[in-house]
Order: sequence, then structure tokens, then C-alpha cells
Amino acid sequence: AGIAPCPGSGGFQLRRELGSGRSSPRPVMEPGNLLCGGASVAAVLPAGGSGERLGAAIPKQFCALLGRPLISYTVRALERIRWISDIVVVVSLENIETMKSIIEKYGHKRITVVEGGITRHRSIFNGLKIFPESKPSSCPLQKPEVVIIHDAVRPFVEEDILLKVVLAAIEHGAAGAIRPLVSTVVASSADGSLDHSLERARYRASEMPQAFLFDIIYQAYHQCTDYDLDYGTECLHLALKYCKTNAKLIEGSPDLWKVTYKRDLYAAESVIKDNLSQQVCVTTDMKEDAVQLGFLLHETLKSEVKQVKGISVFLCKNDNHLQNIFLGQCYNFICINAKKSDINETQQLVDILENARISVLHPVVLISVHLNVSENMSFSSGIEELAAIKEFAREVKKKNILVYGLLIHYNKDDPKLQETINSAAAIISALIKDRNPELIGQIATAH
Amino acid sequence: AGIAPCPGSGGFQLRRELGSGRSSPRPVMEPGNLLCGGASVAAVLPAGGSGERLGAAIPKQFCALLGRPLISYTVRALERIRWISDIVVVVSLENIETMKSIIEKYGHKRITVVEGGITRHRSIFNGLKIFPESKPSSCPLQKPEVVIIHDAVRPFVEEDILLKVVLAAIEHGAAGAIRPLVSTVVASSADGSLDHSLERARYRASEMPQAFLFDIIYQAYHQCTDYDLDYGTECLHLALKYCKTNAKLIEGSPDLWKVTYKRDLYAAESVIKDNLSQQVCVTTDMKEDAVQLGFLLHETLKSEVKQVKGISVFLCKNDNHLQNIFLGQCYNFICINAKKSDINETQQLVDILENARISVLHPVVLISVHLNVSENMSFSSGIEELAAIKEFAREVKKKNILVYGLLIHYNKDDPKLQETINSAAAIISALIKDRNPELIGQIATAH
Repeated sequence: AGIAPCPGSGGFQLRRELGSGRSSPRPVMEPGNLLCGGASVAAVLPAGGSGERLGAAIPKQFCALLGRPLISYTVRALERIRWISDIVVVVSLENIETMKSIIEKYGHKRITVVEGGITRHRSIFNGLKIFPESKPSSCPLQKPEVVIIHDAVRPFVEEDILLKVVLAAIEHGAAGAIRPLVSTVVASSADGSLDHSLERARYRASEMPQAFLFDIIYQAYHQCTDYDLDYGTECLHLALKYCKTNAKLIEGSPDLWKVTYKRDLYAAESVIKDNLSQQVCVTTDMKEDAVQLGFLLHETLKSEVKQVKGISVFLCKNDNHLQNIFLGQCYNFICINAKKSDINETQQLVDILENARISVLHPVVLISVHLNVSENMSFSSGIEELAAIKEFAREVKKKNILVYGLLIHYNKDDPKLQETINSAAAIISALIKDRNPELIGQIATAH
Repeated sequence: AGIAPCPGSGGFQLRRELGSGRSSPRPVMEPGNLLCGGASVAAVLPAGGSGERLGAAIPKQFCALLGRPLISYTVRALERIRWISDIVVVVSLENIETMKSIIEKYGHKRITVVEGGITRHRSIFNGLKIFPESKPSSCPLQKPEVVIIHDAVRPFVEEDILLKVVLAAIEHGAAGAIRPLVSTVVASSADGSLDHSLERARYRASEMPQAFLFDIIYQAYHQCTDYDLDYGTECLHLALKYCKTNAKLIEGSPDLWKVTYKRDLYAAESVIKDNLSQQVCVTTDMKEDAVQLGFLLHETLKSEVKQVKGISVFLCKNDNHLQNIFLGQCYNFICINAKKSDINETQQLVDILENARISVLHPVVLISVHLNVSENMSFSSGIEELAAIKEFAREVKKKNILVYGLLIHYNKDDPKLQETINSAAAIISALIKDRNPELIGQIATAH
């Protein structure tokens, strides 16, 4: 087997640059914590594709979902797994700067960007070559025992399946995720007629992630022909052909699907929105009306949103409580302001969200709820506040926080109060699910 | 070949019932118009599936997209094609009433509902058996020369591919749509390891629609075994095995994809929303400010929406113009009311939309634009109108018309006017694309 040179020509080390920036350095852990099944693990993400099938101007891995490039979601899915020590992203020359800025903007760690080849196999090979046989002091990368190969356009990969393919690779030398076939597979004859159809139950679709003992896949790439490198796509095939390794096939979940067509971008965006709208946190100040409304909203929202977090009665003194909520991946906040024309509480919450850097990866929805307690429905006294909330929403949108207003006609003795609350909960739920950046600063009303 | 009995037990004739209802009867055409390539054509839609893969409580073909069941979109896609004389929908016994009510509600024509079998092949066979060999006077169905078989869960089928498979079936006896494989196909050995992988370029995914000379597919079903009927899924395979007919394979578009998983429902809904938001029609009355604003909005919207229809300057006198717009499949209307507190024009437009029955199949978005021409931004004079538009929006939502309010601060001498118009166009575009039923009756503001 050949020796992979330490990067210099094709490899771009971003880990160090980023480590010294605003983000905290990579945590020092016991070596044991960084292993999986006793083995060191790295990942290679080929992302050199041109996105022809999508019909888009930009390659699909760089298409934005809720404003953030698809590849950043996939990188994040790998990066959050502690036992993956390094992630090598392989992109074409013209996208190296784009990829670097994505890593910078979203604070990704443990990433090395490598220039791709003209085909998928050549790109993966380039990614593998970046690992040196022995570790020179100048090179932060170390050859792993196991390497995961995953597609940049499969953003919803879970730790469960990654663990399964890695453990199976340790045992069998190679492993890959599979899925049942959705359609029957047919072979056509030379004239474009049906030659035969395959029995669906006997075959599977080969998906990603796949994992290999590093030496096996590296040898396979070294030994394979130019024809393989130019026309092949399947790593499992190379391991079988050149290293006589029969990969273990692991049944994966439907989430592994590959973003291929425009409709897949739609689906991915909807799945992300769905994931982001599972939790909502209701905060209020100490005023009586606000606390009561907060309680009612909290109860009513339970039928609309899966998890409604406890009311932080006094925002500023509950930093620990809020921190726990952030760690629980909550991206939706309802801030109940007692006064109709005052967005003080909302501003405070924005500051806390900003300090917690919670909106770096996903847009946060913040609904500024205001109580209209007067008998008549007059809006006239709220004019300045309307302008204020629009201006404010525009400002904080730059921080990826989407602020919407909601004016609730509140009279605790009104027999129709629950109806009003239901209406407010439905509006809140719609705003959270849509996360529409064009509607920020608008004030919805519930009465 | 056996003789298909005229319906009575398993077949439910809905054509006549519906023909005498509110909808206009089937147009009388020259017989030649109803043929395709000189042949009579019917379609069978197996829709007996249980939707296991989707993980939903209801079968996926009955899942609602924008409030309307998926199967209704597929039925509509076939029904609009004049040369398909009959559409046979095969559903399981427990869904027959559901299917009948869908046909009634959405005014579908030329549909026969047939009870399905316990497998896909048995359901298709039931659908074919409904056509009598010779036409008795009591039976409205006639055996077609060509039969299309299509999935209920492939709603985006276009006339182009239907025509291609029918013409190829006339020539070759059978034909089916194919697509390139998205993933490599692998065969596993008994222990769950990779046995071999198929060369991707040599194989295709067999999709729908397929078309057959009726006698060929009917004979194939009559001759095939119980094993085929219970475990097979592929009609092309039966035609090859029992009638020695090598189907012609026709490359289809990505739109043919099958709604299989939850993410596919998301994708389908987004595709439908996307299709519905391609056109918008701006209407105004004769007041000077409204006409000017209408013109500015019209121009500005062009950068947001693909097709912006001409301004109907005086609504009621332009019925013909509006009728043409309806025929052009426009589902989005902007009605500019000169007065801030008056929704007369909006109400008139709702009446016209309702009479044209344009919201039967798709929700129509109607944005009621109001001008605030006063210097200060006071809302106080608009209180009653706010309540009025909410109430009004709730009422017309029952007719599948979604009304939103938009208050534009309009001063034609304001140097920032174009900025205001841009903001209004962005809000309009967002409302049209989202079609969110929870936000009806809300009043957005642009200034």
C-alpha cells in the first residue's frame, strides 16, 4: 500500500484557524472517548458533485435550506459525534473558498477541506490520501483505523447507523447501509424493450454511510483501474473486487435518503422545519395578567406542539433554566410582555439568545406577545410600538432571529377567552412551523 | 380469455349520479376525439394500499395535501385528458365510501369505483374485470383497446408520458415508464453480506404509468398463478411471462416519482404550492391612487412571481377578462381597495371566484389590499374593518378562499415609495407561497 502524503498541495487545514477564532477549542478528552469500538474513526465526505439532476445553477450540496447550505447540515450531523475524530470534505477547486466560508460561518470543527477529482471515486481517493501513514509533527491528521464514507447530500444521518456500520466494518472489513427498493428494477435489451425484471425482494438499494477498515479501502483504491476510478461509483464493489472483502449490509432508516432532485430539497426543508418546531418555550414577566395568559397559552399549545417548556417566570434570574432549554435544542420562544407597547422583555430575550449563540445553526423564532386589556379594540395607542417592532425585527433578523408580534385581546373574565387563546395558539403554531423570514415584524391579532 | 362481467357486485357507477348533479354533463364529442392513436383508452388506478411505509394512520393515497386527498390530484391528472374515456379506481372495501365522497366533493367525472383484492395484482385484475367484453345497454363501460395502469400515489403524471406509453403499447403490446436508478442495486448473500452489485448503467427503475393492449394484460392476469397474484407487483413482468410481450421502456421525467414516505408528502405539498404560486392577478377599482398602486405592484411583483396578469381596471365589467384568467389556472388574486375601511371590491371578487367554482380543487389566495393615505400612521380609524375582514375571511374560508389583509402606507410623493412597494410585494409573495390557512384574516402592513 502506498503512503498518503501529509497535506500541503491538496489539503487545506482549517481546524487550527478556526480553533483560535471566536469558537471554543476542541475539548481535550481521554483518548478512550475518541474511539468507537476500540478503533479510531475518521469520515470522508465527497462533495464534488455538480448537481446536474437537480437542474439548479449551484451544486445541490451548496443549496440553502432555511438559509444554510445543505452540506453544513451533513457536516454538523457528523461533527456532533465525538468519536469521529476528523472529517474530510472533498470539494471541487472552485468551491474550496465557499466551503471554507461555510466552515467559518457555522463554526464547524475538526474539518479538513481537500480538492476533489473529476469523478466521485477520484474525489474519495483524494480524501483518503490526506491521511499520513505515520504522524509527523507538522500534520494534525492521523491515519484512522476505520473510515466512514458518507454523502454530503444525506443530511439526516443518525449516530445509530454510523455506529452500526463502523462496528460492522471493524468485524467484517467493510459495511454499508441498505434500503428496500422502492421500484422494481428492470434490464432493457438493446432496442429499449424489457429484457427481464429483477425480483424485488432479492435486491436492495445501496445507500450511505459506508465504513471500511482504512487499509482495506485504501488498498482497493490503489489497486483499482482507471476505468473503475472514472466510471464506478460504489466503494463496496471496490472492496470486494480488490480486497475480497464482502461488506456487511446494514438495514438503514428512510432518513438516509439522498437529496437528488428539486423535490428532495423541498422535502429536506420541510423535515428540518418539522424538527425545529417540536419544542416551544414560553417566558413571561411577573405581571399578573401576563402570568395567567402564559399559563393558558402553555396549556393550549400542548395540543399544537409536541413539547412545551416550562414558563420562566422571571427571565433574567433564570439563566440556568434557560441554558438547559437551549441545550435541549429549543428554537422557538414566546415572550409575553405585559404592556402593549413595550418590547423590553423581548429585547432581553434576544440578548440572551444571542449570547447563547443559539441561532448560529438554525433560525430562531421569537413571538413577542402583547396584551390588549382595554375594553374597546383600539390600536391607536400602539402605533409607535408597531413601528418599533418592525425596526427591531429587521435588526435581529441579521442575527438569524425571526421576531413576530402577536396582540392578544385579553380579558380574564371574558367567557370567550379560551376561544381567543385557541386562536392565538393556532397562529403561534403556524408562525413556528413556517419560519417565514418575509413576515417578520408583522403583528398578528387574536381575539 | 374470460369475459369481464358488467358491474353489479364489485363495481360502483358514479358517472351517472354525478353527471346529473351540479356539474355539467360530459361533453358530446366526435368519437374520433376520444381516441388516442386510433384506439380507445381507459385507465385503472390501483389504490388499495395500506400506507405502511409512510407510518401514517390513513393510507397515503388518502392523505390531504392542502386539504385535498392525494388520490384526487392523481384522478384529476388523468381526468383532464380527454382521450381517456374511463377511469377505474380500485380501493379496499372500507375506503369505498371515502372514495365516493371524494369524487362527489371534487366533481370528478368518468370514474368507476371498484373493490380491491388483498394484493396489488389482485386489485388491478379486479379493475380490469369491470370492463364487459361486449357492451350491454345497462352498462356504461366499454372494453377499451388500450388500458393505462397508473399508481394513485403518483399525482404529477403529465399527458406527454401518458401519450407515449399508450402509443408504444399500441405498437408493442405493452409499455412502461422507466427512470435511471438513484442508488446502486446490490444482492445480498444468505448471511447479509454483499454478494454482488449491479452495474448501475445497465438497469432502470420501473415506474408508472404503464399501458397495455387490453387483451394482452387481461390474458396475462387470467393465466398467471396464485403465487404471481399474491407476491408479484410488476405488470410488465406478467405480460412478458404469459404473453411473450416485451414491453417498450420509455424514459420518464422525475415528476413520476411515487409518494412513499412522509418526506414525499412534504415534497408533493411543496410542489403543488409551487405550481399554484406561478401566477397572480392584480385587480383594482377606478380610483386614481388604487390604479397607480396597482400598476406599481404589478411591475414589482414581476420579480417575485413568474406570471403577473394584467390589471382588470373595473372588476364587474371585465368578466370575460377574468374568465380567461381563471381558464389560465390563476389561483392568486390581489384586490386593491381604494378605501382603507372598505372591503366591497374584495367581496365582489369573492363572489366572482365562487361563481367560477375556481376554488373547488385548490385553495385560492385573495389578498385584500388597503391604502393608508394619511400622513400619520394611525390605525384607529380601521378598527371596525379589521374585525370585518377577520369575520369575512372565516366565512369565505369555508369556500376554500383564503383572504389576507395588507395595509400599505401610500403616499405617491414619498421618495421611499418604491421601498414600501418592494416590502408589500415580498409579503404578497410569501402569503401566496405559504397558503397558510391559520393566518387568514390577519392584516399585514407595509411601510
